[in-house]
Amino acid sequence: MEIRYRPEDLTKLPRSVEYRNGVVYMINQRLLPREFKIEKFRAVEGVAEAIKNMTVRGAPAIGAAAAFGLALYAETSKAETKEEFLDGFYKAYETLKNTRPTAVNLFWALNRIKNLVEEHREDSLDEIRRLIVQEAQKIADEDVEANLRMGHYGAEVLPEGNVLTHCNAGSLATVHLGTVGAVVRVMHKDGTLKLLWLDETRPVLQGARLSAWEYSYDGLNVKLIADNAAAFVMQQGLVDAIIVGADRIVANGDFANKIGTYMLAVLAREHGIPFFTVAPLSTIDMNLKSGKEIPIEERSPEEVLTCGGCRIAPDVPVYNPAFDVTPHKYLTGIITDRGIVWPPFKRNLKKLFSSL
Amino acid sequence: MEIRYRPEDLTKLPRSVEYRNGVVYMINQRLLPREFKIEKFRAVEGVAEAIKNMTVRGAPAIGAAAAFGLALYAETSKAETKEEFLDGFYKAYETLKNTRPTAVNLFWALNRIKNLVEEHREDSLDEIRRLIVQEAQKIADEDVEANLRMGHYGAEVLPEGNVLTHCNAGSLATVHLGTVGAVVRVMHKDGTLKLLWLDETRPVLQGARLSAWEYSYDGLNVKLIADNAAAFVMQQGLVDAIIVGADRIVANGDFANKIGTYMLAVLAREHGIPFFTVAPLSTIDMNLKSGKEIPIEERSPEEVLTCGGCRIAPDVPVYNPAFDVTPHKYLTGIITDRGIVWPPFKRNLKKLFSSL
Repeated sequence: MEIRYRPEDLTKLPRSVEYRNGVVYMINQRLLPREFKIEKFRAVEGVAEAIKNMTVRGAPAIGAAAAFGLALYAETSKAETKEEFLDGFYKAYETLKNTRPTAVNLFWALNRIKNLVEEHREDSLDEIRRLIVQEAQKIADEDVEANLRMGHYGAEVLPEGNVLTHCNAGSLATVHLGTVGAVVRVMHKDGTLKLLWLDETRPVLQGARLSAWEYSYDGLNVKLIADNAAAFVMQQGLVDAIIVGADRIVANGDFANKIGTYMLAVLAREHGIPFFTVAPLSTIDMNLKSGKEIPIEERSPEEVLTCGGCRIAPDVPVYNPAFDVTPHKYLTGIITDRGIVWPPFKRNLKKLFSSL
Repeated sequence: MEIRYRPEDLTKLPRSVEYRNGVVYMINQRLLPREFKIEKFRAVEGVAEAIKNMTVRGAPAIGAAAAFGLALYAETSKAETKEEFLDGFYKAYETLKNTRPTAVNLFWALNRIKNLVEEHREDSLDEIRRLIVQEAQKIADEDVEANLRMGHYGAEVLPEGNVLTHCNAGSLATVHLGTVGAVVRVMHKDGTLKLLWLDETRPVLQGARLSAWEYSYDGLNVKLIADNAAAFVMQQGLVDAIIVGADRIVANGDFANKIGTYMLAVLAREHGIPFFTVAPLSTIDMNLKSGKEIPIEERSPEEVLTCGGCRIAPDVPVYNPAFDVTPHKYLTGIITDRGIVWPPFKRNLKKLFSSL
């Protein structure tokens, strides 16, 4: 695989989170699709609040935002001694950590910086400040680089034609480009993406609100459908491939993703349509043997009883699982930043990890 | 099959449309689920407007409403001569006919009364008035009777347990009880319905708005899900049967119904779950050989770009097919008012119609 495009060739969007000279910048995802606004944060508390209230969402984007919160502290702290600085650093660390309870990337990014600080405890205060900012930028840059690689790998294996995706695994969910977002953007640049079908992804509507906005912003040829119409467009021969993100992939290739993914997987096989998931290696959890071990989060009934802010149903009992698990037998391949994993997944995932 | 229950045993709801002494009564479906209100109409124009603006919806309910519009005219017309009365009758007929362009039951009900009037042209004016009112009541009563029969037939073949349905083929869509509505109500009365899963049925949300309201009103144990969660609940073993209505069934058993039905059919087969449609014989169109001949109506993008009145997506292209066609191979059986039709459908439908 050869990297043929740089991020700026693939998107007109800025990074969803950035840091420059004491300011954290974030695309405000709460205002989308009505308004495209970049928020500026000059204090750690503001960054923490933005993570909590979902101004920024998507595990990789949250991880980078938290890292930039520490960078912001490092550059703007008025501490005059190293002790004073480290006291404030641990406070900032705790503030950022107590924002979203289940975002693994959040803890991973914060701990990566904390460990670095602890390794360099004997260095000068100025050097520690510099190292924190540099590491935070590195976390963000690595995420973009991984997406760029997934995008190029994915475009090599997806067929030319119409692609369908679910939810938002785009630029907004990551630092830049996205996982699915990188693949469809490379295909668009190559001229092999004819049409990108977006299902709206009830109940939280990430497809209708976020994917529709970001992909049309970049000039991709998109078409929005109700989730109920996906099977019909497949039956009509209007879908050549399906590609979705992943929240967790386990050792046998089973994977958890936004509710509705399993439905698309069954329909893809019924219609002979290739079905891929795309995720960085960090999403693969080799400690779990099968998808049956993945806990499924049940979320508030309000998400189903309302839609885009409007109340739509009477006060009846609701079941609202946020994710589902797709058994690996429905999966054509896993697109990672280290290449494509093909079946048999159990053997090939093991091989990939032991080669690292 | 033995009819064991009367409509009043099965529902606390009044008929969705009724006529008594110069007044047409309708449940206002535009206000549901927020408000349960019965509207009264004392003029043909009001009835026509109510059909047009979807105060009443569902093909059988619309047919009965139009017939009651003519009954209202017949009883309240101040015409003193037969000629004057017939002039007004044809005007009322046209007014009611020009309300919804594609509602087959509407034309069928209006023409049934027009033909009767023309057969009895030589009768007295009073007799003609009486015949019109009687025929309109008969149209409504026959619809209720057919539903009652479907309900009892259906309850004989559906397994005890959890049933999933789509859209609203309930009491609100018919004069009383519904098609699916009658089946699940008989099961509820028999104690064989454990749980009724309702998917919300985007884009127009008939499941969330109407089914959730009417079935919980009658005390059925319901649970509402996003359309995306249907596959997951099947995978968890939580669905024992699926039952849906039909807009048109053709000679080989293929059938058109609300968008999303085909998706459920594929998922049902994948999970080994029986999948039934229920409809009166009048829904079966023996002139079409296969589902490929059924035209699919595409509706306004606004239905997808908004949800329950709220705007949810940016201004992107939308594909909004209102119906899909389920090939008969996914169908376990067709529940009709004349009993169950089993595969092979082509042969057995032909046999049923030639026995009439």
